[in-house]
Amino acid sequence: MSSLNWLNQEPQGLDEHAAAAARARQAQLTKPPGALGDLETLVIRLAGWQGRGQPRLERVHISVFAADHGVTEEGVSAFPAAVTAEMIRNFVRGGAAINVLARALNATLEVINLGTIGQAVIAGAHDVALGPGSANFVNGPAMTDAQSTGALEAGRESVERALGGGAQLYIGGDMGIGNTTAAAALACVLLKAEPEALAGPGTGLDERGVARKAALIRRALQMHSGHIRTARDALQRLGGFEIAALVGAYVRCAQLGLPALIDGFICGSAALAASRMRPGAQAWWLFAHRSKEPGHAAILTALEARPLLDLGMRLGEGSGAAVAVPLLRLACELHAGMATFAEAGVSGKL
Amino acid sequence: MSSLNWLNQEPQGLDEHAAAAARARQAQLTKPPGALGDLETLVIRLAGWQGRGQPRLERVHISVFAADHGVTEEGVSAFPAAVTAEMIRNFVRGGAAINVLARALNATLEVINLGTIGQAVIAGAHDVALGPGSANFVNGPAMTDAQSTGALEAGRESVERALGGGAQLYIGGDMGIGNTTAAAALACVLLKAEPEALAGPGTGLDERGVARKAALIRRALQMHSGHIRTARDALQRLGGFEIAALVGAYVRCAQLGLPALIDGFICGSAALAASRMRPGAQAWWLFAHRSKEPGHAAILTALEARPLLDLGMRLGEGSGAAVAVPLLRLACELHAGMATFAEAGVSGKL
Repeated sequence: MSSLNWLNQEPQGLDEHAAAAARARQAQLTKPPGALGDLETLVIRLAGWQGRGQPRLERVHISVFAADHGVTEEGVSAFPAAVTAEMIRNFVRGGAAINVLARALNATLEVINLGTIGQAVIAGAHDVALGPGSANFVNGPAMTDAQSTGALEAGRESVERALGGGAQLYIGGDMGIGNTTAAAALACVLLKAEPEALAGPGTGLDERGVARKAALIRRALQMHSGHIRTARDALQRLGGFEIAALVGAYVRCAQLGLPALIDGFICGSAALAASRMRPGAQAWWLFAHRSKEPGHAAILTALEARPLLDLGMRLGEGSGAAVAVPLLRLACELHAGMATFAEAGVSGKL
Repeated sequence: MSSLNWLNQEPQGLDEHAAAAARARQAQLTKPPGALGDLETLVIRLAGWQGRGQPRLERVHISVFAADHGVTEEGVSAFPAAVTAEMIRNFVRGGAAINVLARALNATLEVINLGTIGQAVIAGAHDVALGPGSANFVNGPAMTDAQSTGALEAGRESVERALGGGAQLYIGGDMGIGNTTAAAALACVLLKAEPEALAGPGTGLDERGVARKAALIRRALQMHSGHIRTARDALQRLGGFEIAALVGAYVRCAQLGLPALIDGFICGSAALAASRMRPGAQAWWLFAHRSKEPGHAAILTALEARPLLDLGMRLGEGSGAAVAVPLLRLACELHAGMATFAEAGVSGKL
């Protein structure tokens, strides 16, 4: 495999001093200790990430990675593969859910085209096309070595652009018809789970469609099993361009000290792979929501993640992560803006 | 009992036409059907409430009701009763959690002083003092007939003020040292539940304190049981001024067609009483979050409510409801701002 030396860099350490300062301030604010629940732990984590006792969250960056999947030729999606490129155009024109959310959050949004079936260059999207989508993993590896390297690099570069723009939070998003099949296959290997437990309806398969999808994954896993020794192998053989890019992004976030807010099932499968490829990276990740895609639960359990939201969302694009941003911002506002017991002249606990 | 004829008015009907228009639009937006989960059902409900297919949520009103509880003389709280009046001053000065949230949400906030032990008039709070807090319900009814009527009226008036100010959403909040004891006692009667199942730590009792609180409620319930025939009786004998005000507010919201976003345990006990006193009112309520106070689960189950958030909050003040507001606003933004399949030239389902 090609050299990706940066993948081996250690994650940054957390600023325990700043986290302790935030924890101490929380104990002085006019409320019973712990009464703000997760909003307290969130701001303490943000303090440790940002290295200041009163963290802020003005600048949020969203990178949506899009790519096609050869496995769609097996009929694993409720939507045609053409939708991937059509949705890239929709992102560029501002009409998708993630566009609306980015505007509402005043977040920067970029779309990275990693390769679609028609191989069109789509103006307005970052073009990092690695081919006409990944190959059908039922017949062989989803990616060549060069492709998986290119995708990991695309993820790394997006984090470096985000930091260059002053981002305080990184959100990765995905678009790719067929990508729940790839994510489920990848997670099956990493979790040693059965395809029937992780395959789900995706964009809207019926029960029979889900059963076919699981059977297909089972067949592919048998074919690949002798060739997979590492998480990187699993990613290259079963993942997709956008999943590999998200892996690179999540690892790079941890190495450069940019907290990542992780979306749903596709992003979760990437986070799982990233946690295997770069242990310790998870200290920089926050899990935004529990996807309705049934396989997400197993991934969250394996990562010991308890997401902030459980709204039955299953859209991708980073949308579930974006919806969680106001919670983080309100946590910062409460932390900075509430009076202390001393300031307000309020009596303490008996 | 005094005449509260308005309590018998029917709740307003919903605009099913507007809800159907919103549902139809959701099906055309560029996403798999249902992929936005609760954000889709939220906007459809808002459409039915507002009578327009594209609802908006600019103006949010928050009324925080504060009162003392005679039962605090039994030592049922981790904080001294003086904190109720101290926190009213904190609300007026803008230093409490709900102040910070109201500012962040650009919501209007009013504080209603229903009566504290010192009976001080606190400048900047609406003064509707009904006495030095409710009476200790271990010895007799918590409220006189005039007091419970006055509290219900105070809630009704706050909703009418909110509507006068153009509010599109009503949030009620509570402050009152001792009020988890009153709310648990009230809910025990309404749910025919055991005090041990509904009494919790409140602002921070330890295990022994919670057991004492449950035993106290059990004793009070035995004393009152022969005198309670209606939900109104239960409210008057076991509730508190702020709980009764919230009951009046939630009923009035439904009658005047103003959606109410319901906070945690205290507000939940009021909603439970309101649902008994004015059946059908619940059609105008939305449940914001699952409180960490353990008795809340039983109330939510009885109301068949599935709250939006589960963040381990247990502060009161309407804070959990306020934290949920951005989700509602993002649901409206997505609904209004996303492109349709036709507009974006995106292919539909296979």
